[in-house]
Amino acid sequence: MSANMADPINLTEKLSLFEGHWRPHVVGAFNGHDLMVVKVQGQFPWHKHDDTDDFFLVLKGQVIIRLRERDVALKAGEIFVVPKGVEHAPFAAEEAHILLIEPKGTPNTGDPATAAPRREL
Amino acid sequence: MSANMADPINLTEKLSLFEGHWRPHVVGAFNGHDLMVVKVQGQFPWHKHDDTDDFFLVLKGQVIIRLRERDVALKAGEIFVVPKGVEHAPFAAEEAHILLIEPKGTPNTGDPATAAPRREL
Repeated sequence: MSANMADPINLTEKLSLFEGHWRPHVVGAFNGHDLMVVKVQGQFPWHKHDDTDDFFLVLKGQVIIRLRERDVALKAGEIFVVPKGVEHAPFAAEEAHILLIEPKGTPNTGDPATAAPRREL
Repeated sequence: MSANMADPINLTEKLSLFEGHWRPHVVGAFNGHDLMVVKVQGQFPWHKHDDTDDFFLVLKGQVIIRLRERDVALKAGEIFVVPKGVEHAPFAAEEAHILLIEPKGTPNTGDPATAAPRREL
């Protein structure tokens, strides 16, 4: 993260710097994890992470975290942690903004072959 | 975290459940870390954590993270990560609300002898 590491991370400002959905942008680091912002809309593929929990904080809009047995509906100001190994498929009817926290290098699809690259902001 | 673990964590609602400053309340778990909300006002003692970074997201109000060489001013929607080993002293002129993330068991003062207990919500 170089020079920006020491500055406050303004999430709204970071989200204003890019467009596109399901493209995680790294805005900081914490204990070996990437702090990422992402814009989402539509359905993301079903996947799971065998080695890590998945942290979601909705910053704007509404997101549904689909689990195999139920849906978890989240609005701005709400967190949901998908436990490691649990299949999930995030969905948003309209564009929503999320703070994600995952260990560095975690493929967003659960599979390095199909994962979106993480860009740094 | 028992039954609540599977529900969305509404941060505003959790913050409405307690009073008092510098009392971290655990609202969830993520990869061996506690997710905590805390209300702050005034000056917290100088301290450091030799084994962990310290994650702050301001949810309401304004917070200054005092470092030895400068102050980092944060407002709602801004994150700052204090790297491990770096001395810091959070300060808020008026009440502010924060999301904290630290490994389970981290003493908030850097010293188990003086640390506030973590309560679960």
